[in-house]
Amino acid sequence: MADQAPLISDITAAADRLVGHAVRTPLLNAPLLDADFGRRIFVKAECLQKTGSFKYRGARNAVASLDPAERANGVIAFSSGNHAQGVALAAREMGSSAVIIMPADAPELKIVNTRMLGAEVVLYDRDTEDRDEIGARLAQERGLSLIKPFDNPRVIAGQGTTGLEIALQAKQAGISQAADVLVCCGGGGLTSGISIALAAGAPEMSVHPVEPMGFDDTTRSLATGSIQTNTLRSGSICDAIVTPSPGKITFPIMASHCGPGIVVTDDEAMRAMAIAFTRLKIVLEPGGAVALAAALFHRDNDNDVIAVASGGNVDAPLFRMALEKHG
Amino acid sequence: MADQAPLISDITAAADRLVGHAVRTPLLNAPLLDADFGRRIFVKAECLQKTGSFKYRGARNAVASLDPAERANGVIAFSSGNHAQGVALAAREMGSSAVIIMPADAPELKIVNTRMLGAEVVLYDRDTEDRDEIGARLAQERGLSLIKPFDNPRVIAGQGTTGLEIALQAKQAGISQAADVLVCCGGGGLTSGISIALAAGAPEMSVHPVEPMGFDDTTRSLATGSIQTNTLRSGSICDAIVTPSPGKITFPIMASHCGPGIVVTDDEAMRAMAIAFTRLKIVLEPGGAVALAAALFHRDNDNDVIAVASGGNVDAPLFRMALEKHG
Repeated sequence: MADQAPLISDITAAADRLVGHAVRTPLLNAPLLDADFGRRIFVKAECLQKTGSFKYRGARNAVASLDPAERANGVIAFSSGNHAQGVALAAREMGSSAVIIMPADAPELKIVNTRMLGAEVVLYDRDTEDRDEIGARLAQERGLSLIKPFDNPRVIAGQGTTGLEIALQAKQAGISQAADVLVCCGGGGLTSGISIALAAGAPEMSVHPVEPMGFDDTTRSLATGSIQTNTLRSGSICDAIVTPSPGKITFPIMASHCGPGIVVTDDEAMRAMAIAFTRLKIVLEPGGAVALAAALFHRDNDNDVIAVASGGNVDAPLFRMALEKHG
Repeated sequence: MADQAPLISDITAAADRLVGHAVRTPLLNAPLLDADFGRRIFVKAECLQKTGSFKYRGARNAVASLDPAERANGVIAFSSGNHAQGVALAAREMGSSAVIIMPADAPELKIVNTRMLGAEVVLYDRDTEDRDEIGARLAQERGLSLIKPFDNPRVIAGQGTTGLEIALQAKQAGISQAADVLVCCGGGGLTSGISIALAAGAPEMSVHPVEPMGFDDTTRSLATGSIQTNTLRSGSICDAIVTPSPGKITFPIMASHCGPGIVVTDDEAMRAMAIAFTRLKIVLEPGGAVALAAALFHRDNDNDVIAVASGGNVDAPLFRMALEKHG
């Protein structure tokens, strides 16, 4: 499956590899939230996943899928944060080692945490250095396996296990079979993985990627039918889901399985963070809150809605600001 | 079982009644938290329970255990907050109605939320009015069933379902059979219920109630072997677990099944809130954080430890303060 979309059987195989390792995160609901917004809102709380985001799922599946010799040589990843932590932990758990290439201006918390999880962090300057060149050199010198953050079928299959759980939990909770499923979307690994899982397990549900304003590459790609790129490379508080464009593997999957994208403002993401605090008792980072923001502020029907809250790795000052403005 | 301790069979019966209604809350763990503190720490996240605290479990079991005529007349409860919300929601879900007697100085958020859950809130002045008299009059006039917050076998059995889940989840997670289980303790409903469940399902575990300094009635009661009372009735930020003394039903259960109590400071509770934010991505109220505070700051062995995080109903300003001081 070198560069092909994973099949549903790849996702169920990933789920088997993750049993006893990944958290089966709860699908949360709050009667007071439903009352406030006049519809049933469910939140798949991937912020409670190991390392604070869904990224551990794909990383663990990718590291577990290497052959023993590859795993012994170690892995390498480029990431501004959440993928880094997922890869670092998965590598450590499985007796491998990880080199993580991070921009020098990544949030301090994410750099520190990645190191604490046992990874070797190599920092580069976004403006003057070419991360691909640095990564290629290190990979060659040490025989490292590159684990791409989204355009990797094993990673997509791992993220897709979130969708298997949603299908099951939605049934148990009596959620409408025609629910909307909103997913925080960067490169599309989580969105495409979930869309494959739900096409098999809950085919009437409608999956929509959600992006921050100004970084709506996937929404525009879906609307035009070809891969579009963002003008800006940074500048949203939703840093975890800012990517130049959807992937060569993830985009065709999303084009086949997803409805139109939804775009939310940074302010709406911050309001969703405050509401998740008040009503659901979970901590979301801005990029992990955009799907909930779309469920709350971009409603176009009365369907039950499931928002995937993809991560919670936010620094305290930014979280305090969200509570101060909207709490 | 009018005024007797519930049996393990009462707790499994309660679990059957709660299936599909209560959240099976996750047992969370964070590799970075373990690294910081040098032991394995697990958190049973009851802040993610419906209404933001474990109280829903006992309330739902108590309302479900009424006969249909009683349920039709409605229920009444005294509560400064979390029990109120649990009873209100359980009553509404089951086609009953709830009157909640609350002190007029209870946190605004809790009063508003209780009303939004459909309850009739009757406020009284702690200094000049007798809540028992008000409650007795209303109960008699309307034929309401009183649901006590902890000294009620049905309520204890409901809270004990948390312990059944802990026993199962601990096995799945490979937690030591001799783990310490620390429980935030007010009147002892949660602590005693969990202790019965674990005596049956994980008998080598050691259950300890945790209380805020100055309100350590249960700790002193266990140490002396008879029910002790706090001098102060209020004044801790851990308002959710401030009670005058352990219950007539809960105390003998705890005396049989629990190890010594642990007392933590308000500042330790606030530090635990900040750490739960950073490492676990959950929102805890001070009273819901004392068990985690004990696990972090009052360690007397290297055992695996399970802290029950009992609730997350905290106002934004107090949470911001915890992050500002300790985040």
